[in-house]
Amino acid sequence: MAKSADIYYKLDPWKIIEKGFNKEYAKVSESVFSLGNEYMGTRGSFEEGYSGDSLIGNYFNGIYEAAELEKSGYKGIIDRTEFIVNSADWLYTRIEADGESADLNTSAFEDFERVLDLKSGILTRSYTWNLRSGKKIKLEFERFLSMKEAEAAVQRIKITPVDFTGGIILSSGIDFTQIHHMTGKSMWNVVDIASEDTAISMLGSTVSTDQALLVSCLFQCDYSSKSDCREEKKLVRRFVLAAEEGKTLEFTKIIRNISRKGTGKEDKEAFDKKCQENFKVLRALSYEKLKEDTLNWWKNTWEDSDIAIDGDELNQQGIRYCIFQMHQTYHGADKGTIIGAKGLTGEAYSGNTFWDTEAYCLPFYIFNNTEAAKHLLEFRYLTLTEAMERAKELDCKGAFYPIATITGRECCSLWQHASLQLQASTAVAYGYWHYENITGDEEFLFNMGLPILIELSRMLATRGDWSADKTRYGFYGVMGPDEFQMMVNNNCYTNYLGKKTLEYTLDVLNRCSEKAPDRYQEVIKERGLTAEEVKYFRSIAEHMYIPYEKETGVFEQHEGYFNLPHVDIDEIPIEEFPLYHHWTYDRIYRNDMLKQPDVLMFMLMYNSDFTEEQLRSNYEYYEPRCIHESSLSPSVHSILASQIGKEEEAYKFFGFATRMDMDNYNRNTGEGLHTTSIAAAWMNIVYGFGGMRSDGKELSFAPSLPKEWKGYSFKIHFKEDVLFVRVDGKNVKITSKKGAGIPVLIYGKPYTLGKEELVIPISR
Amino acid sequence: MAKSADIYYKLDPWKIIEKGFNKEYAKVSESVFSLGNEYMGTRGSFEEGYSGDSLIGNYFNGIYEAAELEKSGYKGIIDRTEFIVNSADWLYTRIEADGESADLNTSAFEDFERVLDLKSGILTRSYTWNLRSGKKIKLEFERFLSMKEAEAAVQRIKITPVDFTGGIILSSGIDFTQIHHMTGKSMWNVVDIASEDTAISMLGSTVSTDQALLVSCLFQCDYSSKSDCREEKKLVRRFVLAAEEGKTLEFTKIIRNISRKGTGKEDKEAFDKKCQENFKVLRALSYEKLKEDTLNWWKNTWEDSDIAIDGDELNQQGIRYCIFQMHQTYHGADKGTIIGAKGLTGEAYSGNTFWDTEAYCLPFYIFNNTEAAKHLLEFRYLTLTEAMERAKELDCKGAFYPIATITGRECCSLWQHASLQLQASTAVAYGYWHYENITGDEEFLFNMGLPILIELSRMLATRGDWSADKTRYGFYGVMGPDEFQMMVNNNCYTNYLGKKTLEYTLDVLNRCSEKAPDRYQEVIKERGLTAEEVKYFRSIAEHMYIPYEKETGVFEQHEGYFNLPHVDIDEIPIEEFPLYHHWTYDRIYRNDMLKQPDVLMFMLMYNSDFTEEQLRSNYEYYEPRCIHESSLSPSVHSILASQIGKEEEAYKFFGFATRMDMDNYNRNTGEGLHTTSIAAAWMNIVYGFGGMRSDGKELSFAPSLPKEWKGYSFKIHFKEDVLFVRVDGKNVKITSKKGAGIPVLIYGKPYTLGKEELVIPISR
Repeated sequence: MAKSADIYYKLDPWKIIEKGFNKEYAKVSESVFSLGNEYMGTRGSFEEGYSGDSLIGNYFNGIYEAAELEKSGYKGIIDRTEFIVNSADWLYTRIEADGESADLNTSAFEDFERVLDLKSGILTRSYTWNLRSGKKIKLEFERFLSMKEAEAAVQRIKITPVDFTGGIILSSGIDFTQIHHMTGKSMWNVVDIASEDTAISMLGSTVSTDQALLVSCLFQCDYSSKSDCREEKKLVRRFVLAAEEGKTLEFTKIIRNISRKGTGKEDKEAFDKKCQENFKVLRALSYEKLKEDTLNWWKNTWEDSDIAIDGDELNQQGIRYCIFQMHQTYHGADKGTIIGAKGLTGEAYSGNTFWDTEAYCLPFYIFNNTEAAKHLLEFRYLTLTEAMERAKELDCKGAFYPIATITGRECCSLWQHASLQLQASTAVAYGYWHYENITGDEEFLFNMGLPILIELSRMLATRGDWSADKTRYGFYGVMGPDEFQMMVNNNCYTNYLGKKTLEYTLDVLNRCSEKAPDRYQEVIKERGLTAEEVKYFRSIAEHMYIPYEKETGVFEQHEGYFNLPHVDIDEIPIEEFPLYHHWTYDRIYRNDMLKQPDVLMFMLMYNSDFTEEQLRSNYEYYEPRCIHESSLSPSVHSILASQIGKEEEAYKFFGFATRMDMDNYNRNTGEGLHTTSIAAAWMNIVYGFGGMRSDGKELSFAPSLPKEWKGYSFKIHFKEDVLFVRVDGKNVKITSKKGAGIPVLIYGKPYTLGKEELVIPISR
Repeated sequence: MAKSADIYYKLDPWKIIEKGFNKEYAKVSESVFSLGNEYMGTRGSFEEGYSGDSLIGNYFNGIYEAAELEKSGYKGIIDRTEFIVNSADWLYTRIEADGESADLNTSAFEDFERVLDLKSGILTRSYTWNLRSGKKIKLEFERFLSMKEAEAAVQRIKITPVDFTGGIILSSGIDFTQIHHMTGKSMWNVVDIASEDTAISMLGSTVSTDQALLVSCLFQCDYSSKSDCREEKKLVRRFVLAAEEGKTLEFTKIIRNISRKGTGKEDKEAFDKKCQENFKVLRALSYEKLKEDTLNWWKNTWEDSDIAIDGDELNQQGIRYCIFQMHQTYHGADKGTIIGAKGLTGEAYSGNTFWDTEAYCLPFYIFNNTEAAKHLLEFRYLTLTEAMERAKELDCKGAFYPIATITGRECCSLWQHASLQLQASTAVAYGYWHYENITGDEEFLFNMGLPILIELSRMLATRGDWSADKTRYGFYGVMGPDEFQMMVNNNCYTNYLGKKTLEYTLDVLNRCSEKAPDRYQEVIKERGLTAEEVKYFRSIAEHMYIPYEKETGVFEQHEGYFNLPHVDIDEIPIEEFPLYHHWTYDRIYRNDMLKQPDVLMFMLMYNSDFTEEQLRSNYEYYEPRCIHESSLSPSVHSILASQIGKEEEAYKFFGFATRMDMDNYNRNTGEGLHTTSIAAAWMNIVYGFGGMRSDGKELSFAPSLPKEWKGYSFKIHFKEDVLFVRVDGKNVKITSKKGAGIPVLIYGKPYTLGKEELVIPISR
């Protein structure tokens, strides 16, 4: 693997610390120091301006723009795509003294330090600015997004003239001129500007999607000399501050950002009302209260979500950073928000959400924030109509969920992904099934899951086909999650998940008809489901072809995979990675090399369907063929390696997971964080070393301790309780917070968890 | 099949006649009445102007423009494409009387007739124009391109005031404002305009490719009142003609078009010199001489190229039209010219040339114009460098010939075709082999063929791969000529042609080393060919995997094809054709349906490799699976059906061939003629009913007579002689023009052809 870590930040169990500023790392740090609160996200850019390489990015969940694509002339290939849009820079600040502007790219400075405190969500930064005039000014910056009032954020700047008394000019405001970097254009029109004595605001609307964003700032500072500088898309208030040697000036900016996603009349009226009341609400916000609420929010969150690792400072810092970013990105505060592939930290992948949501992120939320998990699944219900439209475009019945989306519409312009990958669809079924398996929430399932399952089954019944001899059903011309095998037949993952989806649909139909007959009748009627259809679902589920070699116990990734030319991946020169850049496009698809696991993936998702022997055979067959060009890949390998007792491999593959972004493994963290990999890191510890399995009838654990660690612990939400699992050199210790008497399996044996600590010797 | 014929033109053995003008058919007729002389082509548009639907198209072989494409970000996908460019309208004319302009879209008219005389290549047209003022003017148009002086063309207009005496205004000139319809833009800058007493000229240059075109006209007419109207890109001379009742005014315009393809200093100097001498040369041209030469050219051509059919007027007219268009499009006058998919009759397929050249067109030239065949093959030699560049882009060694090209560079922007189809490359080897097999021209082979064969073999040795168990060599991730099966492994056609290419390379290397050792040493050195490479070529040829089912004798189109879901093509509703427009793109690729034959194709190309039993088994297996969405498909089926005695099917599939464009079968003749299908129509008769085979050691014939016909005859050039094959109700009669004593097989038995007619009873 042509990957290596740059350990750039200082080690600390609860903080990400940058000591001294390395310009080479400017954009990576902008991503790493991103803040988010699900509603909005802001990259860790220098608010005082930075003339070096930078991506000032401010994103709002669900605020997007669209681009028309060249018409392909072929059916089912999209001609319009949507992307999360970079919006106003609401942290905009400039600091001037003696005619010089603070700019870490050109100014002289010392004692630079930047700290992200994971416990509080507060980002601070400080340095001493050495002016060309010989003077020194100490600058301290603080910012945070409120975790309670999602629209609110705070910026505080402290300015201390170290060795002089005189004027310092601070300009602060709102900048709507920021371009969207992927398109090179500003995607905003400014439709209103307002300014009052202590507050200003700007109202922008997206150029083609008719969404809106009101950004407003309340300034708290020395107001003796101020003036406004108003441009078409920029409003800046200029304060001339009388600074006294050694005395610290404090400047606070309280920001309120109101976004309008909907474009209907009601949405607009509600938004207009909020805008009218905005300054009043804004003035009522206080730094202290916002901070207190945010600290409390994080305190509560960590109390039930922490993972502690004893004896591995790197991964301790890494995993807490992951958990922090997961909660920042999404915590189910709002229905209809999504988890973009880069969260709210960059423009790459267009802010679109992928199957990663259900396959990788959902487990984190199921076990950390059940409500959030539910809301994630609800997004697919809210976009069922779009998925049905898409199915029609693809000559299918039912619902075909998009590979990449913001609003539910397919945004992936590469037909070979958008038309051939069924994994987004089956992952929705998997997500509902997984959620229900843990929560037992049948009401939600019957209300939202069932209509989806019916439409998914319809899609599976029309997208698939019977083999030439009519004995086997399967999917032809598909691409599995392993994107190095394109347009194959009977991809094992696709067929397996298809079978599972159909079986689950039949199961839920059955249960709904028994337990909620009214709802059942309602759904059947609403969906026009016939007995023939249900019979056909059963038939194709029964006849689903799962390529499998009995003698070896190895599933064949797709029909014919075993005959493919073999590539010894260890012989590929390091400089040829990433392969997408160095190998001709089609060459990648002509051999047995995998980008990420297909067979191992479904063997993890439906783990209890397989024997350990099967897991071993398949792991040993596929692992050497996988190059992990997806950041999601190593964790799956680590978890399964752990399960089959390959402790060293498990630890080796874990190495990638918690620090992928902090250490810029993939050399592209500057574009934004690998948010969904962050979720995989959590799984890697809980499912991997913790040996948790959530696909069986009972929750089970089979912890092991990497020899590099002294111990570790994790917490998970389960059935309205919180389980606390600790593993030390000898024992596994489990308690439940409320002592609700939860039945679990540990190393395969049944136990009931109470408040009292259950202590079991590590047996792996 | 959702296709049906519109019999619009009148039947005549030597003419295409349009009686009365149907606007619905305007664009189809523009294509059908196209004239060409390899150097240039002009569509059959109304020169006097037509305000209805029209594509005025004037194309020059090798004069092209380029377009930059969106960068794909993946390696090996092109970001620039080239297309033949529409150029000046040099037939531009307007006829006015009483303030009205002749325009067949808006004017009243009667007695419209348009005739293309296939014997002479002259297009005439006449009608009586009924003016709104009540007057009548008879208009007669004649045009032809010189088949001797390729740069020259003639337009003659006769104007007869039927019932009045008065002024008629005729304007005529050169119009460089014509847009290229595919891009919607004019692709020309006009850099010089000149006018003299009886001649005018305009010099244009292409906007980005720096090519040039000098268009000049010499006017012969009543010059008493003339004036010039000069615009930026248009120069028109206006003649006020004093017309006398019943007296015919004659207007003649002799056109000379000089194009410059090359952009080097020498090219430019030579071109400038030609431009300077242009008016002198132009003035020396005469209508009579140009016409005489052209008539002679066609007379000679028909003498040795005609196919006569007794008892089938439709196909008699059809096949002569095909032969006529083949000679118009290409006759080897110039090296480096190509046969575009639409010849010089439209912009569709960008004027690019495809594998059709070697697979479908070359046989026609081998047996009608050997020199032309040689020049066609030479084009691939002249573009070997570009093919080697392309191979590099695709991570291969050697040469990878483009799927679509004008200058040798790949112009196909669909990676799934440009990267996966090897057929253009192997067709080059096939072409050289076929040419040599008939001509025995080893000198040409050693000089031009051998370097190509070496580089093709190198490509095959690097593009292919060994199966997992290392026992079989083959090509993975390919698309065969049947474009309904994408990214398959071990496509039988590709592997078979690959094997043949390698074997031929080894054979030619061997023969060259024996017969021309100096040339052999030169090539080996120039190409750096090593003994290891040659050994490897032999090894992969020997181990080439040809999927074949012994029990049934059926070749499997690709590994796994037999397991594909079956589509009963008779059950596809007619309104779903063409499938590319009605089925989602990926759906086309998910079953056993064929667009055009793969297995049957190579069984025709290397016919003597197979037993009749094998041909039958494969025909019977594949024919019902083929929807013939390619216009090249039916002829292959017809020829093989003939061979295995399925006479009715042979005739049924032939039905499509000769009249495809005249009857607008594919509903897109308006875009241009299906030039390569025209070639297939010739093959259909000669190889099909005539049962000629040219892949064996001797040329062989096995004629049959469709029961719908009374008889037929065809002529072919062979070994500097011309064979004349006649088939009537009872016998096959063959003579040779020179009586050179050519050995042939007839129904498998050897004969030697002399001047004396050989008469053999039909035995099929």
